[in-house]
Amino acid sequence: MEFTYHLPVNLIFGQGKVELIGRETAKYGRKALVVTGRSSTKKSGVLNRIIELLKAEGVEAVVFDKVTQNPLTTTAEEGAAFAKDHECDVVVALGGGSIIDAAKAIALITVNAGNLDDYIFGKLSADQALPLVIVPTTCGTGSEANGCAVLTIPETNDKKALKYDAIVGKVSIIDPCLMTTMPKPVFAAVGFDALCHNMEAYLSSKAQPLTDMMALQGIELLGKYLSVVYEEYGNMKAWEAVTWGSTIGGMVLNNAGLAAPHAMEHPVSGLWNIVHGRGLAALIPVIYEESISYAPEKFAVISRLLGGNNENDCVAVIQNLIRKLNLTTTLSAEGVGSEDINWLADNCLKVSKAALSNHPVNFGRADLVRIYQKAM
Amino acid sequence: MEFTYHLPVNLIFGQGKVELIGRETAKYGRKALVVTGRSSTKKSGVLNRIIELLKAEGVEAVVFDKVTQNPLTTTAEEGAAFAKDHECDVVVALGGGSIIDAAKAIALITVNAGNLDDYIFGKLSADQALPLVIVPTTCGTGSEANGCAVLTIPETNDKKALKYDAIVGKVSIIDPCLMTTMPKPVFAAVGFDALCHNMEAYLSSKAQPLTDMMALQGIELLGKYLSVVYEEYGNMKAWEAVTWGSTIGGMVLNNAGLAAPHAMEHPVSGLWNIVHGRGLAALIPVIYEESISYAPEKFAVISRLLGGNNENDCVAVIQNLIRKLNLTTTLSAEGVGSEDINWLADNCLKVSKAALSNHPVNFGRADLVRIYQKAM
Repeated sequence: MEFTYHLPVNLIFGQGKVELIGRETAKYGRKALVVTGRSSTKKSGVLNRIIELLKAEGVEAVVFDKVTQNPLTTTAEEGAAFAKDHECDVVVALGGGSIIDAAKAIALITVNAGNLDDYIFGKLSADQALPLVIVPTTCGTGSEANGCAVLTIPETNDKKALKYDAIVGKVSIIDPCLMTTMPKPVFAAVGFDALCHNMEAYLSSKAQPLTDMMALQGIELLGKYLSVVYEEYGNMKAWEAVTWGSTIGGMVLNNAGLAAPHAMEHPVSGLWNIVHGRGLAALIPVIYEESISYAPEKFAVISRLLGGNNENDCVAVIQNLIRKLNLTTTLSAEGVGSEDINWLADNCLKVSKAALSNHPVNFGRADLVRIYQKAM
Repeated sequence: MEFTYHLPVNLIFGQGKVELIGRETAKYGRKALVVTGRSSTKKSGVLNRIIELLKAEGVEAVVFDKVTQNPLTTTAEEGAAFAKDHECDVVVALGGGSIIDAAKAIALITVNAGNLDDYIFGKLSADQALPLVIVPTTCGTGSEANGCAVLTIPETNDKKALKYDAIVGKVSIIDPCLMTTMPKPVFAAVGFDALCHNMEAYLSSKAQPLTDMMALQGIELLGKYLSVVYEEYGNMKAWEAVTWGSTIGGMVLNNAGLAAPHAMEHPVSGLWNIVHGRGLAALIPVIYEESISYAPEKFAVISRLLGGNNENDCVAVIQNLIRKLNLTTTLSAEGVGSEDINWLADNCLKVSKAALSNHPVNFGRADLVRIYQKAM
């Protein structure tokens, strides 16, 4: 047994905890760049409330609201220029995974020279960033609990993770109440993504005792409560469980990494800007079918946590959950064409080497092509 | 459900990992104060090996070897003066819990004004310290995995924790091979302490989902493997489990705190310099007897993890383990006199308020006196 474990997160979890945003942000700066999406935090009123709370603690806020799903490096660079123009000394991320990841990239590139691409592909390296305060409004990526940010480079459609300790949030305020305004299809997709993080970290060759115990709790919580939330959208106990399971997913992937499903999905949403959780729902059953015989004990554990009996019904119980969440889909239904498959396989080998190598079986190019085809 | 979780540890775990000490220390400084004990790391040769490994990476080492069991604030202040004289820029702790805690205090007081007492009692506060590299040689305190250091103030015999993020190790190298040179009675005492950390963090009112899952794994590992190591001192698989269980204990106490057994033991070893784990072995059965009815479900869980059936046999299974580890004792056998009891109760209320208030039942002064008497 050997491993390394490092995760300097600072999590404040609980209903209503968003009210602490002013006090917490004031510890790190006086002028905040609030990174948020185009509409949902405005509609829900949470953006205005946060600006008020910041003001009450003497923190001035400027809003950057140009980030979209599958955020682009270029948008983050635009955000960094905006942060410099306004002399911001702290970044507040308010939104889902795309927002948080863009905010992390902005925090990094504001105080480091060069382009984000260089940091993503490891040509340059960074050990500082603007301090980050993270307030997630979706329970999916778990980005509030790690040092990863997934961005897409528009010229190449490469979707790949930036990974630095410097972009771990100084504090993350995880308030389950903020999740409840998500539209149901968004909840289903992000919640399924969270389950995938936990399953992949558990399957990963970089799994370790601490990530295993956390990932297994994440799988159990999400397996039990995702469909409960979907059925009873006002059940706060279930929201708490799902939100915490999602944060766990973010924590475990930082140390144990991810595996083939994320490795293979990133090229798909990098190319077609589809919803990441739907891409995973299309790919997971096929990938797991081809993986179970390489780690039957682990798939048996996953299956049992999700209500199954052993490795043989693992895919069936996952498909059952996908059905309950109305996520049943295929890559072609999501807009992928058969002419894309060669590019997807090549790009997967380019951007996802690490995650591919964590998987219980090492898929080669021909395997990738076959799996993409089966998932069409 | 609400909680905060923050623990910026950086753990490198595995047999033989001590060989990384040079590379890891060189990241933080060029001149290391190596804090170690008077004899064991010299006899085992590990001190010399570490000095060699540091030199090989260009790190000069000066040794401070004056720390003893239940370390004194005055010794740490002497160490800090020594560190300043030698212009050390990094502290390497090599030893058991006393050494690590003293090294943490040295790292803090070297770069902050005032006395350690002021930082222990919160009159002053610190957000920086010399960088710390921690190499534990016992599997007990778990101090390698948290921001706590327990010191005794010689003028008052107050034994109390210093607690700052700044004294979390920049890196802790946890090498199970280094544990195996402990004399058996030392192993028994520190190993039992580690089990207590996990049990108390689980019993604590500040327990939270993440500390619970970790503490339960710690209890299970230590419950299963402490006696295995004690019987088969060469069983490295068992050493790995015990060492990891001990590190978990250090992690969980940072966020969940400790409870009445540590609260009540600190005055005992503060006054009489007895072995902390033996003090715990004398107190735990009595304290638990008086606590079980206040949290029967939790004691049932602990009992089952230790091989019992329910809350009713929890004390019996713990006493059985104490017997197996040859730790059966009483406070009077350890040197406490009945004339000390009033002082112990008063001092417990003075130094251990937080841990007392975490316990499932809030003991008042009369309860403390009665429990100390029963444990004689």
